[in-house]
Amino acid sequence: MPVAIVAFMMSSGRYTYLGPAGTFTEAALRTLPEAGTRELVPMVSVPAALDAVRAGEAGGAFVPIENSVEGGVNATLDELATGAPLMIYREVLLPITFALLVRPGTTLADVKTVTGHPVAQPQVRRWLSANLPDARWESAASNADGARQVQEGRFDGAFAGEFAAAMYGLQPLVTDIHDAQNAATRFVLAGLPGRPSAPTGADRTSVVLWLGDDHPGALLELLQEFAVRGVNLVRIESRPTGEGIGRYCFSVDCEGHIADRRVGEALTGLKRICPGVRFLGSYPRADRVRPALRPGTTDKDFTDASDWLARCLDGRA
Amino acid sequence: MPVAIVAFMMSSGRYTYLGPAGTFTEAALRTLPEAGTRELVPMVSVPAALDAVRAGEAGGAFVPIENSVEGGVNATLDELATGAPLMIYREVLLPITFALLVRPGTTLADVKTVTGHPVAQPQVRRWLSANLPDARWESAASNADGARQVQEGRFDGAFAGEFAAAMYGLQPLVTDIHDAQNAATRFVLAGLPGRPSAPTGADRTSVVLWLGDDHPGALLELLQEFAVRGVNLVRIESRPTGEGIGRYCFSVDCEGHIADRRVGEALTGLKRICPGVRFLGSYPRADRVRPALRPGTTDKDFTDASDWLARCLDGRA
Amino acid sequence: MPVAIVAFMMSSGRYTYLGPAGTFTEAALRTLPEAGTRELVPMVSVPAALDAVRAGEAGGAFVPIENSVEGGVNATLDELATGAPLMIYREVLLPITFALLVRPGTTLADVKTVTGHPVAQPQVRRWLSANLPDARWESAASNADGARQVQEGRFDGAFAGEFAAAMYGLQPLVTDIHDAQNAATRFVLAGLPGRPSAPTGADRTSVVLWLGDDHPGALLELLQEFAVRGVNLVRIESRPTGEGIGRYCFSVDCEGHIADRRVGEALTGLKRICPGVRFLGSYPRADRVRPALRPGTTDKDFTDASDWLARCLDGRA
Amino acid sequence: MPVAIVAFMMSSGRYTYLGPAGTFTEAALRTLPEAGTRELVPMVSVPAALDAVRAGEAGGAFVPIENSVEGGVNATLDELATGAPLMIYREVLLPITFALLVRPGTTLADVKTVTGHPVAQPQVRRWLSANLPDARWESAASNADGARQVQEGRFDGAFAGEFAAAMYGLQPLVTDIHDAQNAATRFVLAGLPGRPSAPTGADRTSVVLWLGDDHPGALLELLQEFAVRGVNLVRIESRPTGEGIGRYCFSVDCEGHIADRRVGEALTGLKRICPGVRFLGSYPRADRVRPALRPGTTDKDFTDASDWLARCLDGRA
Repeated sequence: MPVAIVAFMMSSGRYTYLGPAGTFTEAALRTLPEAGTRELVPMVSVPAALDAVRAGEAGGAFVPIENSVEGGVNATLDELATGAPLMIYREVLLPITFALLVRPGTTLADVKTVTGHPVAQPQVRRWLSANLPDARWESAASNADGARQVQEGRFDGAFAGEFAAAMYGLQPLVTDIHDAQNAATRFVLAGLPGRPSAPTGADRTSVVLWLGDDHPGALLELLQEFAVRGVNLVRIESRPTGEGIGRYCFSVDCEGHIADRRVGEALTGLKRICPGVRFLGSYPRADRVRPALRPGTTDKDFTDASDWLARCLDGRA
Repeated sequence: MPVAIVAFMMSSGRYTYLGPAGTFTEAALRTLPEAGTRELVPMVSVPAALDAVRAGEAGGAFVPIENSVEGGVNATLDELATGAPLMIYREVLLPITFALLVRPGTTLADVKTVTGHPVAQPQVRRWLSANLPDARWESAASNADGARQVQEGRFDGAFAGEFAAAMYGLQPLVTDIHDAQNAATRFVLAGLPGRPSAPTGADRTSVVLWLGDDHPGALLELLQEFAVRGVNLVRIESRPTGEGIGRYCFSVDCEGHIADRRVGEALTGLKRICPGVRFLGSYPRADRVRPALRPGTTDKDFTDASDWLARCLDGRA
Repeated sequence: MPVAIVAFMMSSGRYTYLGPAGTFTEAALRTLPEAGTRELVPMVSVPAALDAVRAGEAGGAFVPIENSVEGGVNATLDELATGAPLMIYREVLLPITFALLVRPGTTLADVKTVTGHPVAQPQVRRWLSANLPDARWESAASNADGARQVQEGRFDGAFAGEFAAAMYGLQPLVTDIHDAQNAATRFVLAGLPGRPSAPTGADRTSVVLWLGDDHPGALLELLQEFAVRGVNLVRIESRPTGEGIGRYCFSVDCEGHIADRRVGEALTGLKRICPGVRFLGSYPRADRVRPALRPGTTDKDFTDASDWLARCLDGRA
Repeated sequence: MPVAIVAFMMSSGRYTYLGPAGTFTEAALRTLPEAGTRELVPMVSVPAALDAVRAGEAGGAFVPIENSVEGGVNATLDELATGAPLMIYREVLLPITFALLVRPGTTLADVKTVTGHPVAQPQVRRWLSANLPDARWESAASNADGARQVQEGRFDGAFAGEFAAAMYGLQPLVTDIHDAQNAATRFVLAGLPGRPSAPTGADRTSVVLWLGDDHPGALLELLQEFAVRGVNLVRIESRPTGEGIGRYCFSVDCEGHIADRRVGEALTGLKRICPGVRFLGSYPRADRVRPALRPGTTDKDFTDASDWLARCLDGRA
């Protein structure tokens, strides 16, 4: 068997993810059916996870991209927007609720110090002030790292996913802690560019758009390319281009699949007016929500209109 | 030779026009190179001229469509918008200046009564009040009819095209009369639907658009279909649909040819959102003005964007 | 009593209208309550009717402005857009149905020739071809003039309003003739500029707007001034400015009264971007339709937002 | 002297800032003229710095809000958008260049380990790989903390502002390190709500806008409120509302001052359509750039249009 093919199989058999093990990212990754048959490798950072794919050392990288409390994950947005191209093939939406993990035998009254990832803090703040008003918070590098430090005795409790308890010999003292209703994190599986996943009727398309100059109406024009074709946006984030204060690109998700005519035409419109467009993929929505289409925007409407145009050009309209 | 072909040659050898002979319409028609080889038949009305084409009795009908002083010619706009379809293949732009035609021997001091088509009146009103403040105006059925009535002695002078003088044995006493600068009339040659004239780079496309319901933003949406593709409008006229006060369709001319990608895409966009679109043709502009294209709207820009989309769909972007 | 005041009372006691007597215009005028106490003077043309007001010889002029079959009445639109300013204070909507007027004793079988105003023809064409397919049509200067010519024996029948029969000693042979459903004409009462009629909640505001240059998006921008404030258009007509083919102004009616905050702000927006704006009045809608207001566009919404702005400026928001 | 006034003077005499001392934030704060006469108190976090103002313990809080490499500072954006209202009164723009700080006597060849704030890393990455390819990076809690750890001997070099060297007994071995051209951070001085700073002609206005529902065109409508009044955006960031994936508010900066008529009208428009608007202040731009005003958008244009409207309402237009 040729070496290249074996290497590919090995690489495609491996998924990297933002580690360490025992975090929400790993829990989300394990909801993917194929996760059971892959080697899952935790990496120290989002760039490291993605670069492994770029280097051919992994077939996919699984990273958080958006959090309903903290917003976009900048490292992921920026890594996908720059450097060697990658594409998104899958997404996972994970409700975020925390457990307070303690060493066996610890009671709530014993908990004087708590830890967790800085992102966790705003999501448990209200619970803390109601239930452990005197506990001192100190941040850890990750929720899993916080659990490890509880195991080692440096803190009394760690906020982490309940699933992390067993890994560190801890017990969940309180579960289902979440200040915000509907707190969730969206994760994506990125790979080398290839054919997008097949359309399912409930898809999401991701692009990064650079505005040509800083003329005031540029963002408005960009949004109109979507609006005129009846394509709804579901996420828009401005990110600095690194060229100075006030220079942005936009990371945008819209409803629909690039193979949908309305989405395809909107993308070509953007391609024509933006100095830079990076297609990041079309993939099934985790929430399976199908778009409510405006009249005149189905594939059939586009095909009928193209047919009519052809007849006009041919003198038969 | 089969009868059908002979009939077609005969019909296509004949052009009807809005008569009578001796009007600006005939003068404009005679500027077309092919006019010299056709039988030119004056008709009593715009509908009559166009219906002769529909009935196969003429190969083309030449009618005024727009006047820079009086506005759109409703009979032409409405006839093209309804009934059996016709298409525009040519346009002629004729500067309108009047001559005051009199019987030989008449001096300005002799002119007590003047006539002309009602449309002529606002175009000579200022000249009249400055030069013949006491002359009494009475309208005629056409400028040519006015000349005929001067010939017959009913009026002292007629405002008409200078070219009409000889036909009625009159003399142009004063020429180049026109209150408004740049007064002009636009005429079109309409025929049965067929392949549009070849693109010249300086073309005009005419359509009639019906708005679906009376929702407030419908006209705005219609204009955005043009604007998003960088297609400029050069004429827009609302016309009643006949269904009651407040119900309109829009007669619209835009820059460019239906074979231009930006125009074609705009038309398909309109086709998808409007309950009715009638394509009236793409044809060379009489003024030969080429559109100033916005960046990103050339055919090459469209083709490049389509190629990019195909590569994205194929995993090679 | 001073002469000036008497003259004013006389003039304001007199309404001119587009004559002759016996037309739909007179019928519409007589639906106004105050018509009973005024001297009603028919004039030969729209300009003549309006100029009498400008000259102080009449307190108001009643003229047609829009017809659901023929469209805008250009003479009225253009006269109101140019020359010494006038304002609209009232409107009347008159359903248009025709009667076939004949000399007493005439039967349908006797009718070989018919007449009427050219505008009437398209509104009775279908009835004619179904009921009098062989009758010959010849146009008259007005419907009333047609009736007069029937009286004089030149034609067998005239299409006119049923109310014209008595005036010319004729009988309505057939009534309620109208090809188009909902055919109606809208008339307006114009006077010298003054305070608009008080708001009724179901008002219409008329303006004429000149676009500054011919930049492609100018019409779009104009419509957005209305749209952003939630003001709906009910009529838009392009009219040539007289400066050459392709130069237009727009005659526009919108819902609401200039004293409504949303309308007032839209008008100031137009005033700032258009080189020319002529306010033609706010007046009660004849159909008494109240606008369906978009959330955030009531007077209270505007006042609340202004109050909030004042508090922000004052450091108390 | 009443206690309350003394307390106020004391509090207003104190500025908190995002500490620790020796960071870019302190350097930026010291560029404000009044910094010399205030007590400057470093705080452990952005929320801590701002809460001191809310609690009346400080007259102002100085915090980073935007970085040209990393983007918006979420803690600042979110703290200003929620909780008890604060307003921005000043901004400072600080070019970001790093120095490599070492213990006296250290040469470049001696540097095996380096540290700095995680945000510093992407800004020195290229310099590191070119000049110290083998050096190992480990993150510190702040640039100042990194310097302290070099002082203590845990690392060989720290990336920090050159100004931090003296504070920690270190020497700048290399200066002016910055991967990105034009790297800069924008800082703001926030205080309790009050009258905005006086307009200077080169101002910036900050607001937070909540979209009412998730209807697709909501963002487009929001942008149009600015566009119609000719107000240019200079920053827009979406932030999650905390109500679930896909629910955003927008943190927006525009050109101009709330006392400018065009800005004031745009803000009232937003107030009317958005369920939530928080005014965060109008203050002088650090770069002193004056906006290029579109015709029709000066205060005089607004005043003239308002005057015209008043004349129309009064019958004198």
